[in-house]
Amino acid sequence: MRSLEIKNSTSSDEIKALRLITALKTPYLPDGRFDLEAYDALMNMQIINGAEAVIVGGTTGEGHLMSWDEHIMLIGHTVNCFGGSIKVIGNTGSNSTREAIHASEQGFAIGMHAALHINPYYGKTSLEGLVAHLEAVLSMGPSIIYNVPSRTGQDIPPSVIQQLAQHANMAGVKECVGNKRVKEYTDQDIVVWSGNDDECHDSRWGFGATGVISVTSNLVPGLMHELMFGGSNTKLNSKLLPLIDWLFREPNPIGINTALAQLGVVRPVFRLPYVPLSLARRIEFVNIVKEIGREHFVGNKDVQVLDDDDFILVGRY
Amino acid sequence: MRSLEIKNSTSSDEIKALRLITALKTPYLPDGRFDLEAYDALMNMQIINGAEAVIVGGTTGEGHLMSWDEHIMLIGHTVNCFGGSIKVIGNTGSNSTREAIHASEQGFAIGMHAALHINPYYGKTSLEGLVAHLEAVLSMGPSIIYNVPSRTGQDIPPSVIQQLAQHANMAGVKECVGNKRVKEYTDQDIVVWSGNDDECHDSRWGFGATGVISVTSNLVPGLMHELMFGGSNTKLNSKLLPLIDWLFREPNPIGINTALAQLGVVRPVFRLPYVPLSLARRIEFVNIVKEIGREHFVGNKDVQVLDDDDFILVGRY
Amino acid sequence: MRSLEIKNSTSSDEIKALRLITALKTPYLPDGRFDLEAYDALMNMQIINGAEAVIVGGTTGEGHLMSWDEHIMLIGHTVNCFGGSIKVIGNTGSNSTREAIHASEQGFAIGMHAALHINPYYGKTSLEGLVAHLEAVLSMGPSIIYNVPSRTGQDIPPSVIQQLAQHANMAGVKECVGNKRVKEYTDQDIVVWSGNDDECHDSRWGFGATGVISVTSNLVPGLMHELMFGGSNTKLNSKLLPLIDWLFREPNPIGINTALAQLGVVRPVFRLPYVPLSLARRIEFVNIVKEIGREHFVGNKDVQVLDDDDFILVGRY
Amino acid sequence: MRSLEIKNSTSSDEIKALRLITALKTPYLPDGRFDLEAYDALMNMQIINGAEAVIVGGTTGEGHLMSWDEHIMLIGHTVNCFGGSIKVIGNTGSNSTREAIHASEQGFAIGMHAALHINPYYGKTSLEGLVAHLEAVLSMGPSIIYNVPSRTGQDIPPSVIQQLAQHANMAGVKECVGNKRVKEYTDQDIVVWSGNDDECHDSRWGFGATGVISVTSNLVPGLMHELMFGGSNTKLNSKLLPLIDWLFREPNPIGINTALAQLGVVRPVFRLPYVPLSLARRIEFVNIVKEIGREHFVGNKDVQVLDDDDFILVGRY
Repeated sequence: MRSLEIKNSTSSDEIKALRLITALKTPYLPDGRFDLEAYDALMNMQIINGAEAVIVGGTTGEGHLMSWDEHIMLIGHTVNCFGGSIKVIGNTGSNSTREAIHASEQGFAIGMHAALHINPYYGKTSLEGLVAHLEAVLSMGPSIIYNVPSRTGQDIPPSVIQQLAQHANMAGVKECVGNKRVKEYTDQDIVVWSGNDDECHDSRWGFGATGVISVTSNLVPGLMHELMFGGSNTKLNSKLLPLIDWLFREPNPIGINTALAQLGVVRPVFRLPYVPLSLARRIEFVNIVKEIGREHFVGNKDVQVLDDDDFILVGRY
Repeated sequence: MRSLEIKNSTSSDEIKALRLITALKTPYLPDGRFDLEAYDALMNMQIINGAEAVIVGGTTGEGHLMSWDEHIMLIGHTVNCFGGSIKVIGNTGSNSTREAIHASEQGFAIGMHAALHINPYYGKTSLEGLVAHLEAVLSMGPSIIYNVPSRTGQDIPPSVIQQLAQHANMAGVKECVGNKRVKEYTDQDIVVWSGNDDECHDSRWGFGATGVISVTSNLVPGLMHELMFGGSNTKLNSKLLPLIDWLFREPNPIGINTALAQLGVVRPVFRLPYVPLSLARRIEFVNIVKEIGREHFVGNKDVQVLDDDDFILVGRY
Repeated sequence: MRSLEIKNSTSSDEIKALRLITALKTPYLPDGRFDLEAYDALMNMQIINGAEAVIVGGTTGEGHLMSWDEHIMLIGHTVNCFGGSIKVIGNTGSNSTREAIHASEQGFAIGMHAALHINPYYGKTSLEGLVAHLEAVLSMGPSIIYNVPSRTGQDIPPSVIQQLAQHANMAGVKECVGNKRVKEYTDQDIVVWSGNDDECHDSRWGFGATGVISVTSNLVPGLMHELMFGGSNTKLNSKLLPLIDWLFREPNPIGINTALAQLGVVRPVFRLPYVPLSLARRIEFVNIVKEIGREHFVGNKDVQVLDDDDFILVGRY
Repeated sequence: MRSLEIKNSTSSDEIKALRLITALKTPYLPDGRFDLEAYDALMNMQIINGAEAVIVGGTTGEGHLMSWDEHIMLIGHTVNCFGGSIKVIGNTGSNSTREAIHASEQGFAIGMHAALHINPYYGKTSLEGLVAHLEAVLSMGPSIIYNVPSRTGQDIPPSVIQQLAQHANMAGVKECVGNKRVKEYTDQDIVVWSGNDDECHDSRWGFGATGVISVTSNLVPGLMHELMFGGSNTKLNSKLLPLIDWLFREPNPIGINTALAQLGVVRPVFRLPYVPLSLARRIEFVNIVKEIGREHFVGNKDVQVLDDDDFILVGRY
């Protein structure tokens, strides 16, 4: 199914150079379908404020709540409308090798610049199985491996990453295990993006990380850009930590979904099993926005505290 | 699900101006998946030889043998790689309104320039149902209505076309019923493309048709371009008729599939229920190519007579 | 994928003996999903009144408006709840050989007693392709071939049926071309069911047909049972003809959908592209019911004329 | 979509009484499709040896490597062929509420006796979200909640189970956290099945568990039946522990897949990302079988050490 004609065919080196990658939120219409107008607006906010790439349908973008045809369509839409201005990284990983192969083949065929691959969460497998899984997809194009044991139930050990790092398409690792692990990789010239917004400043400036794959940059892309490009800046980092702390009080993307709705840039629609943060937390967010400054956040409406009744939760869509 | 950001957003007027639209063949790998390298080569041959648009996954392209995710992916691939050089018209029609809505929404979201819509074949419906079906999709973007009673079992009568022609997105009709019907529409300034290669010269130069949606142009795009752009040319038309006659001895795309395989531009792989033309017909084709001139046909290998054993027929893919 | 354990594994001979087969209507909830309570009630009416088999997801049951997982689920549901009382024939045919293979394999795996197979409508193919298509599925279990050129655009000629009739799983033909064709087959001991309610009395008693695959029996299963079992009965046939004529004024299942809604046995919900018959026709139906006798029709509510506003048309479901 | 006709409609109380539930292995053909003949043989071995229920498409049965239509078909097949002899529990849970709703609706419609529901693994959610997720499916029929934090990354706390236990359809918990947690539930009359074969003897006889949902019973159903029905039997438990220990050296179902292939009851076909245990481990298994006694294991071929080349690994199927 390979094509020789993929427009803007991307090398691993281009991916390795990215510092600010946003794990983009997917906004919904009241019936649960994608709200592409809101999505496009979010994309433009990212581009204007300096994000260099987006993850489409990551855990933040709720790829696990999409059918594959929705997911691939969203990648294709993003490539078609924004692929000239920003790198598009499709989360075409899966705990099923069949699905990862199929989705990655389709994603590269429609022009995504790189794939994000997860180890087989929930089903899990042996290290030999993990390597077989990742080797089945690495040949297709530039790929980032994502290690997040708190979600997958299984750490990807350095031995596996070192083995895969020989592959020309292996761009690097999105690592959530901590800065000791980050340093272990960067000491060996393996590219790392921090997967933890609260650690990413130190990862970048103290442990050799190339950048961050960020949730927080959905909200304050300009500040996250400053954090990744402007040199060590503990003052800015400290200013952001209360926001980051607030975002991850419940499993992501519950916080970011609530926040973007209160900023008026997405409709307050949740696909189950996600539900909004409590009223108390929603009030906290408004205060955090005021503390940091509304002007640093996306959108230009007043931030507001939404009522419980403002939210729409959809189970069938 | 609407987006305001579709790149190269296309008006109905741009679609109305197209004269040579190729209903592109979809080539396969031996396991039945798409052969995108061959597909890209076919696309480049169309662009170089003057086709202005392609139908992706039409009856010629065997959209009815694709899963929808394959179909949408192929549209996205075509837009991404070739959308700047040629118009991409997705055959997102269906006899199921749900499927037509879903596929058209997805197709426009990933950048197709227009949709091709069929009336509900096989299941059929009343005229009121037909209008409801088409109105459910016309709002999404420029659309061509396809009338081919020999496949659908039901003629779309002029009364329906006239009613839909008021809609800003209705670009015109691909009409297979004959030149009397063509003239009925063109007299009312409704744009028509001939859906019959054997009639298209006369449709264009004698009955007011804008152009053709062609199968034959898969083989001889340059000659079909001449036929549609160069003024009335009965000599060229006569030269092409034996080829066209040969192509439609069995239901399309059996002939075109056989021909392209013998020209060496696609692998000799058929998705069932299609099977190659008989050896006798395959020999005829080689003679027709010599008669017209190999140089007018796509590809640059010698045309050859394939053996029965050269063909691969796939039922599971 | 074969199983040796299919409960009530059925021989072709058992299928060949069936006289009254109802092409069952699929009822819907207001959101377009299946209304299984109404479905079960319809099934019970069929069983009580003597139908010996049902077609699940035929053109009457709108299989072409189902996703395959809905379709297979409905077959499985019918087998599980009613398979001991009535034969369950799944319409697992398709114009795509891949889909026909997959659906038939699944249908037999979940216990359907026979498959209904159509020739490749819309896409069409050569006779060699048609034979290859049908041979790909015949090995799986008892099968009925369905010939309806007015829907498919292509007649299945006797030569093909005769060739396939050698296969042990070929149970017979649902033939819509007329009684001359019926006789041609029955003279050769090929089992035929009439696919035209208006001809079925004569097919059965004058041309050797085994029975009927009926739409009308959704409404008056007892009378259709009488027509197929009680010996030639031109008086009953004449009594039914106005009803049958009414049912097929617009493409089936528009009439039957409208009728069952007015009898109060299904909700007045239509999946597009089907829309109800006009008010004038709906009034006619009430008169026809009175003429034949309400007691012969399914359900026990008063028949009523529904208003336009009573109907719900769904395009997304 | 509810039906009133589900055959053998099952109460929660019937589910609560089950002591030996096998999480059945799904066997494959060399092309990766289901091997239903082998599956049926495994089912019969379970029935003959006293298993009272099976989980279809659990993590052991690799439901996460199935498309939903495969999964639902397998549930329907099991109900149709074996539903009179054994309870069929479909693993229709998902980390996507939409998928859990759709699959559970379909599973109950085709006759499964109960559903197994997981909390949203990988994507995770808040406790409020978890409750909303489970409440969306509990109304459909008897349900077992599955808690396995080592796979899901998130413990289901007792507070949530206690809240859901009020629901009439909540049959109980498959608990993997340990016997302290088991006792916490059984002290409150909440039914628990051990999800850990190595602990299940003690769970059953020391901590009030009703029984086990077992992987090991795929191999030695008769011994597991004795362990759950025959009273406390530490000798038998000790005899089994080396086998259980062997089975879980790598993430399940790697061990069970390898074991069943070596016992000759399934083909040595693995869907990736699973790969067989190493040769050293495969030799160990043969010794364990000899130690326990071949006659206690399913199948009647000699147990053998398979070579690496005997195994088929499939990524596309």
